[in-house]
Amino acid sequence: MTVFAAEQQSSDIAVLPSHQARLECRAGMASTTAGIANGYVQGNLAILPEKLAGAFHRFCQLNPKPCPIIGMSDVGNPRIPALGVDLDIRTDVPRYRVWRDGEVVEEPTDILAHWRDDLVAFVLGCSFSFEEALMAEGLPIRHIDRRVRVPMYRTTIACSPAGPFAGPMVVSMRPFKPKDAIRAVQITTRFPNVHGAPVHLGHPHAIGIADLAKPDYGDPVPVEADEIPVFWACGVTPQAVIAAAKLPFAITHAPGLMLVTDLLNRQLAVL
Amino acid sequence: MTVFAAEQQSSDIAVLPSHQARLECRAGMASTTAGIANGYVQGNLAILPEKLAGAFHRFCQLNPKPCPIIGMSDVGNPRIPALGVDLDIRTDVPRYRVWRDGEVVEEPTDILAHWRDDLVAFVLGCSFSFEEALMAEGLPIRHIDRRVRVPMYRTTIACSPAGPFAGPMVVSMRPFKPKDAIRAVQITTRFPNVHGAPVHLGHPHAIGIADLAKPDYGDPVPVEADEIPVFWACGVTPQAVIAAAKLPFAITHAPGLMLVTDLLNRQLAVL
Repeated sequence: MTVFAAEQQSSDIAVLPSHQARLECRAGMASTTAGIANGYVQGNLAILPEKLAGAFHRFCQLNPKPCPIIGMSDVGNPRIPALGVDLDIRTDVPRYRVWRDGEVVEEPTDILAHWRDDLVAFVLGCSFSFEEALMAEGLPIRHIDRRVRVPMYRTTIACSPAGPFAGPMVVSMRPFKPKDAIRAVQITTRFPNVHGAPVHLGHPHAIGIADLAKPDYGDPVPVEADEIPVFWACGVTPQAVIAAAKLPFAITHAPGLMLVTDLLNRQLAVL
Repeated sequence: MTVFAAEQQSSDIAVLPSHQARLECRAGMASTTAGIANGYVQGNLAILPEKLAGAFHRFCQLNPKPCPIIGMSDVGNPRIPALGVDLDIRTDVPRYRVWRDGEVVEEPTDILAHWRDDLVAFVLGCSFSFEEALMAEGLPIRHIDRRVRVPMYRTTIACSPAGPFAGPMVVSMRPFKPKDAIRAVQITTRFPNVHGAPVHLGHPHAIGIADLAKPDYGDPVPVEADEIPVFWACGVTPQAVIAAAKLPFAITHAPGLMLVTDLLNRQLAVL
């Protein structure tokens, strides 16, 4: 295993809240990153052996709404300088999932023991970024108001396959009053690197969701009679695809426990 | 009555399809302008005495979604050079409505006999412009495919009042598959001067529409089970407001028989 000399840096005073958050994760913090280092981009993580990384990269290229790449590592290098000062992908996520043959076999708080010289890390945009933009414009977000996880659903929308990577798109759902749903389309359109505009609204059954009260991931939230359920492509999609592909080995973050980067959410707006 | 010397100009060869269309209206053409001079902006018309024009102007300012002003005349001047070569607002609309005390008393093909030195003409953006943009991206528009008029409804959305001008917003409805509804929000957001983004989608009853099959203006169109009705603010709103205000005198166009201008629809896109 290659050893990288980050120790001097990590003992420096962290100037950014995002860097501070990563140092706390490195020191053992293992709870949700929702609400941590507000304003900074958080990311979904997928780590794969080099021999699968090319196909996964192409899968992301073909499916940019669920899998928008905001950063990736060199082969075997746990640093991603473009995403953060002193960032070490092996330690800076609160909790990881180690996958073998499509099953989660371990949920450690670091992956120092699992790191290998052939691994490539992909960091994918996360809905926390666009939720900040929605809240900044006064739109209420049901699962945040109720302090639960966003409800997520496997759909019948097929991702475009690449190598072993194939499967259904996972979506997250937020209910809005119609006027706010229209505004939410406009706001999230500005953020293509964090899932962008919704992929669906209004007819859950049309995308294979039988019961909004029974999400496949996260927690259910009520949708009132005068609201519209609005669905965004979700960064949990790659985890569903990794499970479906029964890959011999992969590492992801644990849902909701994300990588905090030094990028600013507002920097991701294209308009 | 002031006489304007436009006769020489109008005998020139018209170089623009929009100018040609106006000359045909001037010569008596009195049918719908839908599909005429494709690519050129068409407008709703409201003509008011100067003493009411200030309040109406403010009404438009307060209600830009139903009443987006794309041009207006000087007091008593029937020309609006910014909207078209040789344009004469008294003759160049296919059919007018003359209103007295809130009632339509006449539907002439010109208003030469009604023109006065104290009249001000307002030209307001029209959905034909954004429909062109929607069709250019391949979105099917139900009422166009069925060759009927767009269905329009009085809603419970109150316009902001100004002087005698007050009343409900009138909306037009187009049904779309959810994915296309999202795209339609994006496309029409680019065109704030022709009603812009929708004002509502999905729950007609929430804006006071009891039965989509019974529009207040235009023709009904079917909404399929897998579609979402999407509602835009409509340029018929000022006519409903003029009727409700029981103004002693006003002139508008007849619905669907619009002023064809020399502006290009694509010039109206803000992005």
